[in-house]
Amino acid sequence: MKGRIFSGMRPTGSLHIGHLSVIQNWVKLQTEYESYFGIVDQHALTTGYEDHLDFKSLNREIALDWLSVGIDPDKAAVFIQSHVQEHAELHLLLSMITPLSWLERVPTYKDQMQQLGKDGGKDLSTYGFLGYPLLMAADILVYKADTVPVGEDQIPHVELCREIARRFNHIYGTVFPEPKALIGKVALLPGVDGRKMSKSYNNTISLTASTDEIKSKVQQMVTDPARLRKDDPGHPEVCVVYKFHQIYTPEVAQVEDSCRGGKIGCVACKRHLAENLDKLLNPFRERRAVWEEPGKVEKVLEQGAEQARRKTQETMKEVRQMMGLR
Amino acid sequence: MKGRIFSGMRPTGSLHIGHLSVIQNWVKLQTEYESYFGIVDQHALTTGYEDHLDFKSLNREIALDWLSVGIDPDKAAVFIQSHVQEHAELHLLLSMITPLSWLERVPTYKDQMQQLGKDGGKDLSTYGFLGYPLLMAADILVYKADTVPVGEDQIPHVELCREIARRFNHIYGTVFPEPKALIGKVALLPGVDGRKMSKSYNNTISLTASTDEIKSKVQQMVTDPARLRKDDPGHPEVCVVYKFHQIYTPEVAQVEDSCRGGKIGCVACKRHLAENLDKLLNPFRERRAVWEEPGKVEKVLEQGAEQARRKTQETMKEVRQMMGLR
Ligand code: SF4
Ligand code: SF4
Repeated sequence: MKGRIFSGMRPTGSLHIGHLSVIQNWVKLQTEYESYFGIVDQHALTTGYEDHLDFKSLNREIALDWLSVGIDPDKAAVFIQSHVQEHAELHLLLSMITPLSWLERVPTYKDQMQQLGKDGGKDLSTYGFLGYPLLMAADILVYKADTVPVGEDQIPHVELCREIARRFNHIYGTVFPEPKALIGKVALLPGVDGRKMSKSYNNTISLTASTDEIKSKVQQMVTDPARLRKDDPGHPEVCVVYKFHQIYTPEVAQVEDSCRGGKIGCVACKRHLAENLDKLLNPFRERRAVWEEPGKVEKVLEQGAEQARRKTQETMKEVRQMMGLR
Repeated sequence: MKGRIFSGMRPTGSLHIGHLSVIQNWVKLQTEYESYFGIVDQHALTTGYEDHLDFKSLNREIALDWLSVGIDPDKAAVFIQSHVQEHAELHLLLSMITPLSWLERVPTYKDQMQQLGKDGGKDLSTYGFLGYPLLMAADILVYKADTVPVGEDQIPHVELCREIARRFNHIYGTVFPEPKALIGKVALLPGVDGRKMSKSYNNTISLTASTDEIKSKVQQMVTDPARLRKDDPGHPEVCVVYKFHQIYTPEVAQVEDSCRGGKIGCVACKRHLAENLDKLLNPFRERRAVWEEPGKVEKVLEQGAEQARRKTQETMKEVRQMMGLR
């Protein structure tokens, strides 16, 4: 029997090349697992209730991004969290058995309080923000997922989810598997300016970037400052262009050689990278053009929600029964 | 236009005569207001997740109690909270804007922590227990109720509900009325032993008590200990029997007179009360016999849930829209 995965992303803006490795990992997993991929709009509210985001278009945008990278709605359920009420219901029911202290000690809770809250000016002193790891647990458990593809930073959330599953099973009888984290290799790309890649720094390359936009972004990339002339020996380890080559250029060893030996100029090296990135995005553009036809994404999301609900309703029936509610 | 009320009770056991004034108040209100009466089973879990209550039968029991006292499903929607998923959904969405400090300062939070928690051995250190006043707010607001019939002790909860409504309206635009508390006169009856009436003391009179059970309970009632002989002058103010006469005996002035003047014995006085209580419960018994027929309560609860959902779905459509979710 196939394993089952749930994973999600917040719809806070269209995706960039820094998100690619995560989605490409899902594309690989969707053939091996029964897959549920959720656009978790309710999560976006836990840290941004004042942002007045237009989720209607943000949800559509991120769905298009996923589909263009290769998420296949015939293989995976692609849906919007808020369209599946059982997420909220399980969140409420699990809240009854979840100790406050478990939520307070989630490492990201205090970190984000500091980063987004004190330094970022967001109001995170809400009941909803304290509960967001519980909502994540509900997102996973409502599908009885046994596997959760996540990045390293999410391991404590999966650990909490396991603890909550264990506690529920102990109190009411076994309903939930204890899901395992499946740590995907995440390509850690810097922004074109060498800082952390982030839309707020305007240093990203969008998944929908045109050939010209790619060229312009690659031109902005910070190279080895010691190379003043084309035949100066370079230090690829300090060069942003090289970091991208490492991931997207198969003949990367040759690039390193040429750079260290002063056998290639940065201009040519950048052109090479821009071509490779353009090749990378090309199939995404083609798929996107198809999915962008009116009504197509909407249909995917509708059918995905139906598929999701079939599973979540099954789970909730069991949960209510075990808790004595029906 | 009619006002709209929501009120609820936790299904933690069948009701007794101490609950009567609240339900009789609802019976009066159901003709004046568009009425939603919820059996709030999810609330029962906030303080009793370990109790393994069988809500299936408890819900049926309390519905029968309500119907027998005169709640009329043709006038009011009678339903079970957990059958209407929008309660949980609104609870989750409101959690995003609800400051933790608002919940921590609810007066009953610390009180119950002490009473039920430290002294009562219940585990109340959960996320769900901290959130119960928010769940109450969602229960009310999901019907856009403008009026909430409650006892004095619930005023802080309605106040919190108003604050949350105000905050939502301020952030996203006006959706909710700010509901007003309608303080019902609650008949404060002591238990037959003079202590607080409570099922755990076994000093209550059940709404389903038979004539014999009533007699036996009234016989147990504590009277004026100074009256040793029938013609000793009595002090009705210290007598449990008299406290019941005050509420259920129209000719109570005469009872007081006879007692103070030593013109009636306690045995006769009790017989008088037992007869009145029997008369009081008689119409309840008749109605209960009808509602008890197989399938009848189930149908009421099913139709009540449908009626409730029609309203809550309307509200949630608006809420999601205002929050940008659809
Ligand atoms: S040659 Fe390429 S890798 Fe070397 S510094 Fe220039 S851009 Fe970077
Ligand atoms: S006569 Fe009636 S009111 Fe007076 S003490 Fe006896 S029972 Fe109570």
